Amino acid sequence: MNAPLKGIVAYPITPFTTSGRVDEALLGRIVDDMVKAGVHAIAPLGSTGVLPYLSDEEREQVAEVVIQRVAGRVPTLVGVSSLTTERTLHHARHAEKLGASAVMIIPMSYWKLSDAEIVGHFDAVARGISTPIAAYNNPATGGLDLSPDVISRLLEIPNVTMVKESTGDVNRMHRLVQLCGEDVAFYNGSNPLALAAFVAGARGWCTAAPHIIPKLNLELYEAIQRGDLAGARRSFYRQLPLLRFIVAHGLPRAITAALELMGTTVGPLRAPLRALPPEHVAELRQILVELEVLPGGRVS
Amino acid sequence: MNAPLKGIVAYPITPFTTSGRVDEALLGRIVDDMVKAGVHAIAPLGSTGVLPYLSDEEREQVAEVVIQRVAGRVPTLVGVSSLTTERTLHHARHAEKLGASAVMIIPMSYWKLSDAEIVGHFDAVARGISTPIAAYNNPATGGLDLSPDVISRLLEIPNVTMVKESTGDVNRMHRLVQLCGEDVAFYNGSNPLALAAFVAGARGWCTAAPHIIPKLNLELYEAIQRGDLAGARRSFYRQLPLLRFIVAHGLPRAITAALELMGTTVGPLRAPLRALPPEHVAELRQILVELEVLPGGRVS
Amino acid sequence: MNAPLKGIVAYPITPFTTSGRVDEALLGRIVDDMVKAGVHAIAPLGSTGVLPYLSDEEREQVAEVVIQRVAGRVPTLVGVSSLTTERTLHHARHAEKLGASAVMIIPMSYWKLSDAEIVGHFDAVARGISTPIAAYNNPATGGLDLSPDVISRLLEIPNVTMVKESTGDVNRMHRLVQLCGEDVAFYNGSNPLALAAFVAGARGWCTAAPHIIPKLNLELYEAIQRGDLAGARRSFYRQLPLLRFIVAHGLPRAITAALELMGTTVGPLRAPLRALPPEHVAELRQILVELEVLPGGRVS
Amino acid sequence: MNAPLKGIVAYPITPFTTSGRVDEALLGRIVDDMVKAGVHAIAPLGSTGVLPYLSDEEREQVAEVVIQRVAGRVPTLVGVSSLTTERTLHHARHAEKLGASAVMIIPMSYWKLSDAEIVGHFDAVARGISTPIAAYNNPATGGLDLSPDVISRLLEIPNVTMVKESTGDVNRMHRLVQLCGEDVAFYNGSNPLALAAFVAGARGWCTAAPHIIPKLNLELYEAIQRGDLAGARRSFYRQLPLLRFIVAHGLPRAITAALELMGTTVGPLRAPLRALPPEHVAELRQILVELEVLPGGRVS
Repeated sequence: MNAPLKGIVAYPITPFTTSGRVDEALLGRIVDDMVKAGVHAIAPLGSTGVLPYLSDEEREQVAEVVIQRVAGRVPTLVGVSSLTTERTLHHARHAEKLGASAVMIIPMSYWKLSDAEIVGHFDAVARGISTPIAAYNNPATGGLDLSPDVISRLLEIPNVTMVKESTGDVNRMHRLVQLCGEDVAFYNGSNPLALAAFVAGARGWCTAAPHIIPKLNLELYEAIQRGDLAGARRSFYRQLPLLRFIVAHGLPRAITAALELMGTTVGPLRAPLRALPPEHVAELRQILVELEVLPGGRVS
Repeated sequence: MNAPLKGIVAYPITPFTTSGRVDEALLGRIVDDMVKAGVHAIAPLGSTGVLPYLSDEEREQVAEVVIQRVAGRVPTLVGVSSLTTERTLHHARHAEKLGASAVMIIPMSYWKLSDAEIVGHFDAVARGISTPIAAYNNPATGGLDLSPDVISRLLEIPNVTMVKESTGDVNRMHRLVQLCGEDVAFYNGSNPLALAAFVAGARGWCTAAPHIIPKLNLELYEAIQRGDLAGARRSFYRQLPLLRFIVAHGLPRAITAALELMGTTVGPLRAPLRALPPEHVAELRQILVELEVLPGGRVS
Repeated sequence: MNAPLKGIVAYPITPFTTSGRVDEALLGRIVDDMVKAGVHAIAPLGSTGVLPYLSDEEREQVAEVVIQRVAGRVPTLVGVSSLTTERTLHHARHAEKLGASAVMIIPMSYWKLSDAEIVGHFDAVARGISTPIAAYNNPATGGLDLSPDVISRLLEIPNVTMVKESTGDVNRMHRLVQLCGEDVAFYNGSNPLALAAFVAGARGWCTAAPHIIPKLNLELYEAIQRGDLAGARRSFYRQLPLLRFIVAHGLPRAITAALELMGTTVGPLRAPLRALPPEHVAELRQILVELEVLPGGRVS
Repeated sequence: MNAPLKGIVAYPITPFTTSGRVDEALLGRIVDDMVKAGVHAIAPLGSTGVLPYLSDEEREQVAEVVIQRVAGRVPTLVGVSSLTTERTLHHARHAEKLGASAVMIIPMSYWKLSDAEIVGHFDAVARGISTPIAAYNNPATGGLDLSPDVISRLLEIPNVTMVKESTGDVNRMHRLVQLCGEDVAFYNGSNPLALAAFVAGARGWCTAAPHIIPKLNLELYEAIQRGDLAGARRSFYRQLPLLRFIVAHGLPRAITAALELMGTTVGPLRAPLRALPPEHVAELRQILVELEVLPGGRVS
């Protein structure tokens, strides 16, 4: 089984210029900073990267910029999901051509898909590429909830080798291990579940938090790796207020606001998404002060 | 207030040729049959018309075919929703240019939208056109649930004059009347709620059922119009098994299967959507026999 | 099928004296007022009557007081539910001995019951009495949701002849009619659904509202009886703010507060239940003024 | 803060004789076996002990039998919940008189309680005793969901010193630690969450599993205590099939069936609860064989 990812899998936002185009320079810099900070993989075009809000051309542009900038220093996991099977396959092939280490697919819903439709969707894409595929379950965004049973069926497709679970329910992960065995390559996509998921056996943590606190993210992973339960717990609770905040307010809104607070000018979110309202920015600022990401003292 | 719709608002599927292109001829014929059967409006590019699964070009093509074929005999309500505000406005302008009587917008979700984002989305589109807009609430497909309070705010935008409610909860309609007054132009989009919604004051019923039973749909509306409660109830319960079936199995799947049973060859659904499985086709066939849409006798 | 109830089935509260005992005199007076106002049945020991908060002795006391006071002028429906089958049967026999026209049973949950357990519970009680039984579905209070399929199985037990549906979802009623036929004796227990339920075919409306607005409750029923859809709708929307309020705040709290506003001193609710907080009393007062139950003018 | 519990808190069933009375002898033997197996506390009259299905007299009888049999070897946590505040206080005083180390209170719902009512309920009981109180949150049985915010308010009541969380969502525990600090004495009541909860900082695991696998339960706790993450994970996944099973099928049903399979004759469950159906008994038997609780070989 070819599961090329582990550790901290960092999800960059897609920054825009003031005129609303993809800001390639800033995107490259964000990715570079993440790699230099030590993250174990880079995953462009995730939910954080507002994949579904981009045109086909912009999606290809983002994939190219990121893969070029990473330049093989760490693996890349490229989001290729679309509502139709045909478009998903198109993007998967493009990512493969660019040299992505793996692609990620979240089955998206307008009409709820039957289990047979979900399996057929993955199967059709998987037949068209040879790159490893991560199945992504996130009912809160995709609108479909893949049961552990369906996920175990997806993992029987030869190059569907990984699963990212973002329901935020650790019981799903336990069930997956029961169904698929302890070697199943599952990854956690729910930030506040980082500790419980690693303890349950997750190979990696898919997170946008490395925009802000990469060292703490890595510290938690390393504590788990050396079996240091007390250290992992301490590190987790330190990060938890930020992890809860970015999930509660939507990753693109929250990460953009944090970058702005930290001095990086990011362009406007793509409508209908809007910037984090001022009262929540103030709350975020306080969290960043407590994490010593921002200097303390008087909080405006 | 300009609310140009009432009665039976019929939602055509988008049929495809065997090669997967929009089948313009069949689409025109379906629409023509509906108008001749007496429906009060035609609504292309709804959920039934698999709007989100079409390319921008296909969407424009469908709108053109339908508006031309209807040729002003009844009003048209054209779906123009996209995930981004920019694309929604693009399609709204296109529909306006084609002469749509009204456009329908369902705010779609990947990232859950805040109330301010929802209102901002409608406001931006509304400013760009002068055609009346129907706000569409359908959390089961769009992934967002517009509360009666948010809907009442949308109805304050000058050309947002109608609301289509598809939660299937008649209490939402009662609440809307309480908030907005008895003149609020609301429409029911949940087929099994047709009777309760009309009784609650709905002006129309948005439904794909006229592909199959237009006479019964009209009969229910007319009974309500003349205050014939017993007649309305009788008509409703007669239709209910079909109405429940098409909702339970997904409108495009169910309507396509019914048309095939009735002798019209419709091409494949667009993947990942798949044809209704055989066991459900058999159930549907039985319902159609009982409705005398299909000849009775031995059901295979 | 013996279903002795129809129309407005009024649910009295269980009033207490200041020392916390059942206030027999006030209970008798409340019931008498309801009968004189014209309601079609009286149902002591319902949710409104805080059945589960009473001792066995108090339950028997309330049943006696009410049945004696009604004195056969209208049918009585006595709540006899307990968590155990043994206690339920005990109370059912007591009510039968007192001459109750029917008894009502809500299967209560601590451990969720299987369908077989629910059916077994009703079956065991039904075998022990000959009085007609109404099965009561109210997941919000009882903690169990009886599906239409389970309800249809309960209605096969010889003396389970009626069902009270309080989920607030009119689709459940439609489904029940589909499963059991149009003669099924179902009653609506969700106040805000009064109109939709009658239109769906409900024989009666189980409600605590006759403490406050018996004339309006009767007016709605009578409009339905004579097929006056417009009149029924008008009457319904007039009552709706009160109906929504008493459900939103809990019937015992809301009815007690309304009686106090209307000049009847009711003792304290049984702890842990507490009196409606002042801000909600003010809201209720305004609703009562608009209904002309209380004199208008300056609202303190 | 006086929180006298930690480790494996074992919840005995309440066994009945064939005539339906509490089987004191068997209850004593079950408790004795648990203490000898090394559990850290005994908790009679929990959900497993079918507290709400017992008469007041039976409850007092069970408390006496268990406290006498434990005889101070480990702490006791006695369930004292009732729907009314008055009855809860009555049982709390009785448990205190018997020498219970602590009492547990789950606020039970027929009418949903407001936060003020919940706090008032605990406060009234807490004022009447000096024994430490564990607040118990289990919406699946009690019907009320105590938010972390409400729990933190309960923990401000002087002798409410512990909280048992049974929602099965580890995020609730994280939130509790954030709100109340790392010293908060919380206990996990969701068996499948045993590992995640200990890692989150739970002081103990409230469980009926020691009827069957006390050694494995203790092994998990001890692995956590010595910071052995890999050992804890291994032990957890070994137990998980049984933990999931007993929760899925209801603890009294599942534990009773397991004891019968293991050779202990337990009387009938109290109606409406019924014995585990044969197909589930077969599944349980297989799980017990795999755990080597039952001898392997051919499974009938």
